[in-house]
Amino acid sequence: MTVTTPAGFRSAGIAVGLKSTGKPDLALVVNDGPAPASAVVFTSNRAQANPILWSRKVVQEGPARAIILNSGGANCFTGDFGYDTTRLTAEAVATGLTAAGLPSEAEEILVCSTGLIGTGDQSFRDKIVGGVPELLTRLSDTDVTAPAAILTTDSVEKTAVHAGDGWSIGAMAKGAGMLAPGLATMLVVITTDAALDDAALDRALRAATAPSFDRLDSDGCMSTNDQVTLMSSGASGITPEEAEFAAALAGVCDSLAAQLQADAEGASHDIDIEVRGAASIADAVDVGRSVARNNLFKAAIFGNDPNWGRVLAAIGTTEAAFDPYQVDVSFNGVRLCHAGAPDRPVEECDLTPRRTHVEIELFAGEHTATIRTNDLTHDYVHENSAYSS
Amino acid sequence: MTVTTPAGFRSAGIAVGLKSTGKPDLALVVNDGPAPASAVVFTSNRAQANPILWSRKVVQEGPARAIILNSGGANCFTGDFGYDTTRLTAEAVATGLTAAGLPSEAEEILVCSTGLIGTGDQSFRDKIVGGVPELLTRLSDTDVTAPAAILTTDSVEKTAVHAGDGWSIGAMAKGAGMLAPGLATMLVVITTDAALDDAALDRALRAATAPSFDRLDSDGCMSTNDQVTLMSSGASGITPEEAEFAAALAGVCDSLAAQLQADAEGASHDIDIEVRGAASIADAVDVGRSVARNNLFKAAIFGNDPNWGRVLAAIGTTEAAFDPYQVDVSFNGVRLCHAGAPDRPVEECDLTPRRTHVEIELFAGEHTATIRTNDLTHDYVHENSAYSS
Repeated sequence: MTVTTPAGFRSAGIAVGLKSTGKPDLALVVNDGPAPASAVVFTSNRAQANPILWSRKVVQEGPARAIILNSGGANCFTGDFGYDTTRLTAEAVATGLTAAGLPSEAEEILVCSTGLIGTGDQSFRDKIVGGVPELLTRLSDTDVTAPAAILTTDSVEKTAVHAGDGWSIGAMAKGAGMLAPGLATMLVVITTDAALDDAALDRALRAATAPSFDRLDSDGCMSTNDQVTLMSSGASGITPEEAEFAAALAGVCDSLAAQLQADAEGASHDIDIEVRGAASIADAVDVGRSVARNNLFKAAIFGNDPNWGRVLAAIGTTEAAFDPYQVDVSFNGVRLCHAGAPDRPVEECDLTPRRTHVEIELFAGEHTATIRTNDLTHDYVHENSAYSS
Repeated sequence: MTVTTPAGFRSAGIAVGLKSTGKPDLALVVNDGPAPASAVVFTSNRAQANPILWSRKVVQEGPARAIILNSGGANCFTGDFGYDTTRLTAEAVATGLTAAGLPSEAEEILVCSTGLIGTGDQSFRDKIVGGVPELLTRLSDTDVTAPAAILTTDSVEKTAVHAGDGWSIGAMAKGAGMLAPGLATMLVVITTDAALDDAALDRALRAATAPSFDRLDSDGCMSTNDQVTLMSSGASGITPEEAEFAAALAGVCDSLAAQLQADAEGASHDIDIEVRGAASIADAVDVGRSVARNNLFKAAIFGNDPNWGRVLAAIGTTEAAFDPYQVDVSFNGVRLCHAGAPDRPVEECDLTPRRTHVEIELFAGEHTATIRTNDLTHDYVHENSAYSS
């Protein structure tokens, strides 16, 4: 149980033939109330898929009643036809829920899609819209099938739960590539039975995504389809302290971000770039991201090479406040650069473990941020050159 | 003959043991006058190697008399010791030239280094400073040995010449990785016997590098050691029209930039990203660069996959003026995306040739820019994970 861990939710996942493998590719999460509320964070990419364009409208209308997600096609840059597919999908869900005794409008149904951009033809539409009736019959408050149906190149399901005092949070996520800020190629659905309104959910969600998903930068590539959705049913009847709920939500998001990093396409190292002594959080993030996006640094880590020179070459491209000749760089606890010159011998540093910690001390202030990234490997190149062919 | 094609220049290249292969690794170009002038463009990276710090001072003092360049070590982040190595190198050259009848000060000698960051110990110093006397004896106005001595992972020498009316331009370049704006990991020496002063050279050089080296973005990684140096001897006695000289210099720089692109580490495609219909040159460059730096796009080209969706996902991350749903994207002349939807079948597009042309029509204005980049390949990952080990 994941998104159905909190009371007041049902979910289901089925295969409708979008994936050539025949694996599950359509999921639905329904909020049965009694006090539905929701908040959503979308990709900041200006190139946005049709389900994003639709879901933005849904959010403006009020709390979402349900969210339907498909893998096997992004329905992005598929023109007006693709937008109509999204609308028809939402209408099919609303019609089915209404018939089953849960009165709904299409404008209360969030839609997410993930897969290849440009995929969204008549066959795609027929499979999704035609699959909705069966999906509705599979809805269950003990469902475990939804998380698998939203995966693309992911190798494992990503889920997280938090047990509060009389309330809980459940979550599922997908994402293995195009992982970069403004979120990632990443769909996340988080549910809670805590009794909170839209505004409280929105505050907690934005606070939780900033240090988690927004600092995950696996390959510097920002997606067109990202959406992180938080829905509360209010079924617990309990309204936790906002700070308590925010902390719990942040923990759930942090866990999911770590799971996404660990399953990034082709990666052989999970690299945490910890920037310390920054003049501001923004500077710390900027410095960390410049390293996370440096292909030479990422290729060096793949080769178990603690190439601190590439770290300095990368951070020198930023406008953050620091003196490049007064920076310490450590790899897995071994300080390799100090005061603008080599420090400990690189032979002391062991980069064979998958988990890699790079610490950059800027000596420019008291702020810290950690960017999560991965190495650049042969498998990354292979997976992303063969993905659509 | 390259940098010695114009009258008034001598050069030489020798091996002093900086490269483990025993290949040439130290080069010198001397300006014999009679009216020396020079202009230099440096990396915009804030992390700058010791030779860059030194050469910036030389430029402020007046025209350079000579430039000495080594491969086999970047002398970057090597502390005060490394800076002293650069100064001692310049002093050795000045002393030798003065003894040979060409009075010189160390502050007139430009120094360039390229290779691994952090390399610049006592042995490095001894080999360079100790090699200067022999290098001076090899100086010749018909030299052909200098271009090879500045190469690192380059597979071929890069040279260019331009024959003006009674004057000429000669040039040599190195660079195969860390190719990105703010110049590249790239050393360029350009000579001319046209009679022009420092200011005229500077104007022409900045105008020529902006659309050539600054739009070469092979791997998004900016170097700590880039330097493009232009020296005139005045030996032709001819002062060409400034526009004529500028056009000739732009042609030389464009040729070198294309040669750098063609020899980029591990690349299997040379990709020209032509952005048309932009509201400004800056917008065109911004859009082109966002695609050139997108690893998913670059990996797709490696796989001969005309993945136009990744182009749109990349340009959507910019703040340039355009409507993402009104953009045309063509690969090698085949329009694959039009009006926010798929256009011609991808099967019509052949990406097997090394030269790849991606055209992005923004329909937002009349400005155009082309960014040169390369694909992301297994060989790139291999070369850059094994480089320093």
